[in-house]
Amino acid sequence: MEAAVVHRFGDVKNIRIEKNWPIPDFTDTQVLVKVKASAVNPVDTYIRSGNYANLPKLPYIPGREGAGIIEKVGSGVKNVAPGDRVWFSTPVTGSASTYSVVESTSVFPLPENISFVEGSTLGIAYLTAFRALFVKAKARPGESIFVHGASGGVGLAAVQLGKAYNLKVYGTAGTTEGMEVAKSQGADFMINHNEDNYVDKILEEKPEGFDIVLEMLANVNLNHDLCLVAKFGRICVIGNRGQIQIDPRRLMQKESSVVGVFLAHTSPQEMEEMGTEIVDLLRSKKLKPVIDLELPLNQLDEAHKQVIEKSSSKGKIVINLDIPNAN
Amino acid sequence: MEAAVVHRFGDVKNIRIEKNWPIPDFTDTQVLVKVKASAVNPVDTYIRSGNYANLPKLPYIPGREGAGIIEKVGSGVKNVAPGDRVWFSTPVTGSASTYSVVESTSVFPLPENISFVEGSTLGIAYLTAFRALFVKAKARPGESIFVHGASGGVGLAAVQLGKAYNLKVYGTAGTTEGMEVAKSQGADFMINHNEDNYVDKILEEKPEGFDIVLEMLANVNLNHDLCLVAKFGRICVIGNRGQIQIDPRRLMQKESSVVGVFLAHTSPQEMEEMGTEIVDLLRSKKLKPVIDLELPLNQLDEAHKQVIEKSSSKGKIVINLDIPNAN
Repeated sequence: MEAAVVHRFGDVKNIRIEKNWPIPDFTDTQVLVKVKASAVNPVDTYIRSGNYANLPKLPYIPGREGAGIIEKVGSGVKNVAPGDRVWFSTPVTGSASTYSVVESTSVFPLPENISFVEGSTLGIAYLTAFRALFVKAKARPGESIFVHGASGGVGLAAVQLGKAYNLKVYGTAGTTEGMEVAKSQGADFMINHNEDNYVDKILEEKPEGFDIVLEMLANVNLNHDLCLVAKFGRICVIGNRGQIQIDPRRLMQKESSVVGVFLAHTSPQEMEEMGTEIVDLLRSKKLKPVIDLELPLNQLDEAHKQVIEKSSSKGKIVINLDIPNAN
Repeated sequence: MEAAVVHRFGDVKNIRIEKNWPIPDFTDTQVLVKVKASAVNPVDTYIRSGNYANLPKLPYIPGREGAGIIEKVGSGVKNVAPGDRVWFSTPVTGSASTYSVVESTSVFPLPENISFVEGSTLGIAYLTAFRALFVKAKARPGESIFVHGASGGVGLAAVQLGKAYNLKVYGTAGTTEGMEVAKSQGADFMINHNEDNYVDKILEEKPEGFDIVLEMLANVNLNHDLCLVAKFGRICVIGNRGQIQIDPRRLMQKESSVVGVFLAHTSPQEMEEMGTEIVDLLRSKKLKPVIDLELPLNQLDEAHKQVIEKSSSKGKIVINLDIPNAN
């Protein structure tokens, strides 16, 4: 099979395209997917560069989510069958490859109205946003959410999920373009987090604060979030790149809480419930992934660059295996 | 009536004993209590000195919890009647006085096996520890708790409540004496938080960490607590005196959470449930307040000094209104 392979950790040049990589084996509980699309996430670049807590054994194939067609299933697999269109999360072997092995509990049907490219972006961003909002923060209809970084992958998923569940959605982005994308997906109020005093401006708009704050960069924003959150509010820490000074008294004054979110801690039962709910919302057209850019497999290096370097994202970057490799 | 009165904020000399202070009025939903004992808490000294977010109007009577006998009740009060022995929390007029006005929803029966002095310490420490463990952290039987400051008022209440609910109780104190007091109340494992590397030593004892951490001094300990807490664990911030640098990644790695606790946010229904549960535990002899020192009303200044200055507390300091004033 054809696969992007990293033989040693380092910069994007360390991603090599292998034309005759062996198709991986799979167990009784796993499936082999013919991959049609593989979304790219910031975490892929952290791992490829070697700057991540849990590094894979070398060599490895990048890509932690994707969509495609079931090729074969293990003898114990009941939920999908060969020929099924599927999306999947956290595969056993990476998705930047024409085949990928996935645990059957992390594979879900892809409704006909959703393309493979769109479906490839569900396995990380949508599951993470869902876990934050409904498993960890236990959002209730009518509550308000504030998405700190609403134009990114998890951010846009949170905007769509929030609207699907009748939450009032506020958010930030770093550019006018990012703000427009979030608004086009249903955000009720957007502000540019590069503006001076943007926290004060948000609190003018909503003085009582937000029931839920989703935070993609806690080391920069967490102490602000403690001001932005409402009485009894919950702040979900989804992303972080360092330390930050906070005043814990702010937590006491509102009996608010800060909760860590990490998709890898999802239990098989939670994964099934979350995936099933997302499939229902896709079928009823309440969710629709936003795609910024599609590239062929041999431009995965370019995709890794763009997912980190772009000052404001406006949808997902996806490797489309049906696009012929560039020269 | 006789009352300790603060006419202006400042040091302990600003507490004056008034012999003929007027007995306060009360409304239909309130009760007048003949106070027999008034416990002293650190918060009393913060308020008296003027260093507190919510300061009372001057002049005011200190004392935020107490025990005594119901003297009169408002026309709408059903839960208690004149002659009842009671304990109470957050009175409308302070408890360091021969009479105190209290909302009827914050007054609970005092079982015969509990003295007024003991009962006077239930309204802040026990309700706060109960709220942290069972309302905020939702402790389940068999879970482990770590009490950072187990020899103080809230700490000892948490030790007793933990054992009453079949939790495994670990804790710290600052002196051998404090550790012994906590052990005598049921703590399973104690360590001195002034020892070098005490966090490593606790994790040697319990490498998987604690389901619940109760934190009385978050500005010193919170980043340690993020290491001490188990996967899916909850850290309750009960006390704090400043800012602290933390690494939010620790929250993500274990999907742990940090929750603020503030007794003043208790709803009337929660207050009734918490108080009723504590009364049941007193009756079944599962709770028994630990008293360090009893003083007469005109030594409230001395009580304020000791509650802050003592390097390690070993039970509560209480103003006993039945002790004659010292010369």
